[in-house]
Amino acid sequence: MNSADSRFEMVKKRHTETLMNAIKEKKADELFVPFLKKMAEKKNYFTSSSCAGRILLLAALGKGTKKEMYFHKRWHRKVKFSELWKEIENFNGEKLIFKMEAFILHLGARNFEYAEKALKLMKEAGVKKGGIIATKPGKFLIELAGTNAISLPVIDNNKILIEKDFMKYLLKEGNKKLEKNFRFLKKFEKKCLKDLE
Amino acid sequence: MNSADSRFEMVKKRHTETLMNAIKEKKADELFVPFLKKMAEKKNYFTSSSCAGRILLLAALGKGTKKEMYFHKRWHRKVKFSELWKEIENFNGEKLIFKMEAFILHLGARNFEYAEKALKLMKEAGVKKGGIIATKPGKFLIELAGTNAISLPVIDNNKILIEKDFMKYLLKEGNKKLEKNFRFLKKFEKKCLKDLE
Repeated sequence: MNSADSRFEMVKKRHTETLMNAIKEKKADELFVPFLKKMAEKKNYFTSSSCAGRILLLAALGKGTKKEMYFHKRWHRKVKFSELWKEIENFNGEKLIFKMEAFILHLGARNFEYAEKALKLMKEAGVKKGGIIATKPGKFLIELAGTNAISLPVIDNNKILIEKDFMKYLLKEGNKKLEKNFRFLKKFEKKCLKDLE
Repeated sequence: MNSADSRFEMVKKRHTETLMNAIKEKKADELFVPFLKKMAEKKNYFTSSSCAGRILLLAALGKGTKKEMYFHKRWHRKVKFSELWKEIENFNGEKLIFKMEAFILHLGARNFEYAEKALKLMKEAGVKKGGIIATKPGKFLIELAGTNAISLPVIDNNKILIEKDFMKYLLKEGNKKLEKNFRFLKKFEKKCLKDLE
């Protein structure tokens, strides 16, 4: 085994352990778990931090750069308006952002050849965004993502700026897009499991 | 010259001609032109379809899939509220989406080595999204993008759903993010010109 291959085995082992621990501690995205487990059995691939899609409320502190952001609330499923509005009303910080995000999958590949295969599969499947984001020998990483659909601030200066009815409409849109994202992901998962070795 | 290199020269020539024509016809993103021209002089890189960042109104037809979307209005600069609201009020279709999008740059590289260099530079510069999206010999493509900041439907079923004051607030946020994006891009352009050959 060459050094790139042994590094790949090491990295794959580490990421698989992290995944298994996350599953045990119920920290993994449940909808994604069966797929992530099956990918861990592939000879030439592993997965790292991934999300099947979500609706979230992101709190921004200070100037709102990434360093100063934290999750006020995350749901990996459709959300009821009453749940969402409660979280908006209960928020005590300065700025709150409503987001619906499509899935994001990080795939590790044994080498450039397998990274290319994943890229080809991604294009065939119609995944909108993604590419090879790391190219170390033994650690090729591919990021694949659906398109982010909705994102806007709803609270600023401690004040709810969005009208209740409009928020209701946007959540409905977000839920629709999330379901569509889940349907797409199901098909894409099947293709990954079939085409990647 | 090997066949990958001659393909690269051919592809670079074609993309450079496309760029020059777009500049002549005033179809290129003006803010980006000086940089794109200088990148065309690099030995091992070229650029293809790129945008420095924009605020846009996207019209969706039917089910709103990508095929059925068109630009109602695009601005590659800060927008006044009166301009925006006029375009919203004048819209005659079913659904309209307001978006602020960060820059997107497509770089072509001579080979894998140069694509890797661009990826390294992107990480050093703190570009949030991007990767190698095509890996043909002689045609390596790298996509680099800032993070999309705001996106939401504002008209649905032919009806303006967003309150005027809230739209005013979101545009102000969009303008701020666009300026921040332009400032980041200026620094990033300098780094590209300095570090890429």
